[in-house]
Amino acid sequence: MAIIVQKYGGTSVADIERVKNVAARVARAIKAGNSVVVVLSAMAGETNRLIKLAKDAGGEPGMREYDVVVSSGEQVSAGLLALALKGRGLKAKTFLGFQVPIVTGSNYGAARIKDIGTKNIKDALAGGVVAIVAGFQGVNETGEITTLGRGGSDTTAVALAAVLEADLCEIYTDVEGVFTTDPGMCSEARKLKKISYDEMLEMASLGARVLQTRSVEFARKFSIPVLVRSSFTDSDGTLVCKEDKDMESVVVSGITYNKDEAKISVVRVPDRPGIAARLFRPLTEAGINVDMIVQNISRDGFTDLTFTVSNTAFDKALELTRKTAEDIGAEDVIGDSGIAKVSIIGAGMKSHAGIASKMFDLLAGEGVNIEMISTSEIKISCVMDVKYTELAVRVLHDAFGLGKEDVGEETAAK
Amino acid sequence: MAIIVQKYGGTSVADIERVKNVAARVARAIKAGNSVVVVLSAMAGETNRLIKLAKDAGGEPGMREYDVVVSSGEQVSAGLLALALKGRGLKAKTFLGFQVPIVTGSNYGAARIKDIGTKNIKDALAGGVVAIVAGFQGVNETGEITTLGRGGSDTTAVALAAVLEADLCEIYTDVEGVFTTDPGMCSEARKLKKISYDEMLEMASLGARVLQTRSVEFARKFSIPVLVRSSFTDSDGTLVCKEDKDMESVVVSGITYNKDEAKISVVRVPDRPGIAARLFRPLTEAGINVDMIVQNISRDGFTDLTFTVSNTAFDKALELTRKTAEDIGAEDVIGDSGIAKVSIIGAGMKSHAGIASKMFDLLAGEGVNIEMISTSEIKISCVMDVKYTELAVRVLHDAFGLGKEDVGEETAAK
Repeated sequence: MAIIVQKYGGTSVADIERVKNVAARVARAIKAGNSVVVVLSAMAGETNRLIKLAKDAGGEPGMREYDVVVSSGEQVSAGLLALALKGRGLKAKTFLGFQVPIVTGSNYGAARIKDIGTKNIKDALAGGVVAIVAGFQGVNETGEITTLGRGGSDTTAVALAAVLEADLCEIYTDVEGVFTTDPGMCSEARKLKKISYDEMLEMASLGARVLQTRSVEFARKFSIPVLVRSSFTDSDGTLVCKEDKDMESVVVSGITYNKDEAKISVVRVPDRPGIAARLFRPLTEAGINVDMIVQNISRDGFTDLTFTVSNTAFDKALELTRKTAEDIGAEDVIGDSGIAKVSIIGAGMKSHAGIASKMFDLLAGEGVNIEMISTSEIKISCVMDVKYTELAVRVLHDAFGLGKEDVGEETAAK
Repeated sequence: MAIIVQKYGGTSVADIERVKNVAARVARAIKAGNSVVVVLSAMAGETNRLIKLAKDAGGEPGMREYDVVVSSGEQVSAGLLALALKGRGLKAKTFLGFQVPIVTGSNYGAARIKDIGTKNIKDALAGGVVAIVAGFQGVNETGEITTLGRGGSDTTAVALAAVLEADLCEIYTDVEGVFTTDPGMCSEARKLKKISYDEMLEMASLGARVLQTRSVEFARKFSIPVLVRSSFTDSDGTLVCKEDKDMESVVVSGITYNKDEAKISVVRVPDRPGIAARLFRPLTEAGINVDMIVQNISRDGFTDLTFTVSNTAFDKALELTRKTAEDIGAEDVIGDSGIAKVSIIGAGMKSHAGIASKMFDLLAGEGVNIEMISTSEIKISCVMDVKYTELAVRVLHDAFGLGKEDVGEETAAK
């Protein structure tokens, strides 16, 4: 008998009608002869409501009691689904983090999973019971409630699939799968049937918010096939899995963009060892994440260093960088929040030369000035003026042939 | 150092401002040199919201998952108070049912406390930490979440006070204490400074909804002094404690009434053994609680039997009783939902003769026809036409001198 882990996001359990729809979907999987473990997020909006309450009361992430408050949302949705399943005549049992147990470290608000007990859930499955696990939460070694951070329910699901040696982990969400690019920006966007873990990681961290990055890392590490699909349709979804021969023949799998970045350039920095470290230390201390970093070769003992941060951190980062720049004798600091990052992603890049130059040519042909470039094995990112974002996405999507296959059923514009 | 258990009801933690007011009150008790354990209800309205969700999902009390859902409200309010206390620079730690632990039986929705661990809370108090306990919830011996039933947080508080050998248990609510009668009905109603456990039990079960009956029984059993007071004022409140000399000199402590009852009379029942049992069995089986029962001596081998039920159960009770009456050969069944029960309560009745006849005289003097009478050691209840309720309460309140003492500060009409 196959073990399937199904995870449903907040919009899939937003109200009682939807909880009952989820129950119907679980019932179908049971009827098909599977053992089913369900992981639930809180009802849509509930976690935000709890976070606001906790903040208004004076708390912030990292405090033990903050996790006590925000973890309650998943407890409610888990209980409701169990009641709905029992209403259909099925056997079901909820498991909170401490009841599984999902043992984590003590980093409240962003705890990492250390160990998962399987006996209680296996006993339930053996008895024909649907095991419903509250996502996002765990318990540390002294019995305190912890949470895994935003999107943590995805991680709960994939980690459970790993320890239970599940045959499949299904992630139900409000989109139909992973698309070649944002369908809202490009009507030719097409749903992918398959994507490799590495590609998905690049997609996730570059702004295609379908799966939490950490959950994909987990899936890759334990080779768990993850099927991303919609809880509102019967569409096939996208399978996130190991790279296979098919994938290598596809050069570019997707185009992503991120308008939520800003660029800071430190001009004519005396090029001495330790300068970069000196520049980024204050940002790290202020909790600001730096995304891309570009440093050109030095001329006359001076260099230019440019990096990007999120728009929300821009003002603070600029202020801190100006201060450091003065200390280290840089000539100037220039900030620009009107930028976007557009990336092409594909496992096939590893074996296909010339993809980068094709990208640069295409952008140049449209008069797009590339301000920064950064590459990895399966990704090329270009920073440009934000006004070119849509144009760049469409041109790249078309030129790399992403809209071509399975037009019709699979096209977002249907 | 004195140990104080403070319990705050739902209206006292209805929003963040009120949670912060509770934190200020707890801070004062700490500053005065006490060790403080706080028991919280869910934010006002929250338990009803959760119950509605659970019912809509197909659940009902008695189901394991129902308790998982409804217990989450106290988890949230407990966490919020801890955050608010930390915001004031105090040390605080929440304890959910399983973390105390408060061990209960497995009667989900109405579980009874079997045992309470004291080590974790005592450790917290010894470290100068305010222990905040989620009320209403426990954990059974196999680690499942249970709830104690409506008003269960009062029981949590009194039970904790008992096992911790606390010096005082304070119940903060939205009224200023226990009144001689309903201030909304009688402007002369006066707040009592003290009331005995037995009197409080009669008050509570007769409709003065201040303290849950079970919590008073607990307090009496372990001789825990319970101070009922408002979380919105600095008024003294009412101390519920062992009977003392002062109390015995007061003949009547309070007047209660209940308009939510209906009367059913079975006329000319053949007076044979087992008839009463036969009459009430169908009601018990239908889950209908019978309150007062009056049976007069039999004449000519026939008797009349009258009893009261709640208004909501009236139609069903009448239907069932008509059926049984026919079977046992009674002449008629007469129902009347337009009645009220008015009671006088006082520990002093035990040592004062003539209280009942004074009550009957007073009512007769006002032209009130008494339809049923029932008495206990410290209570006399009369059933009358509902239209006389206000008149009866005011006349009795005045005649037994309940409005006399401490007029001014203590009078509700201030």
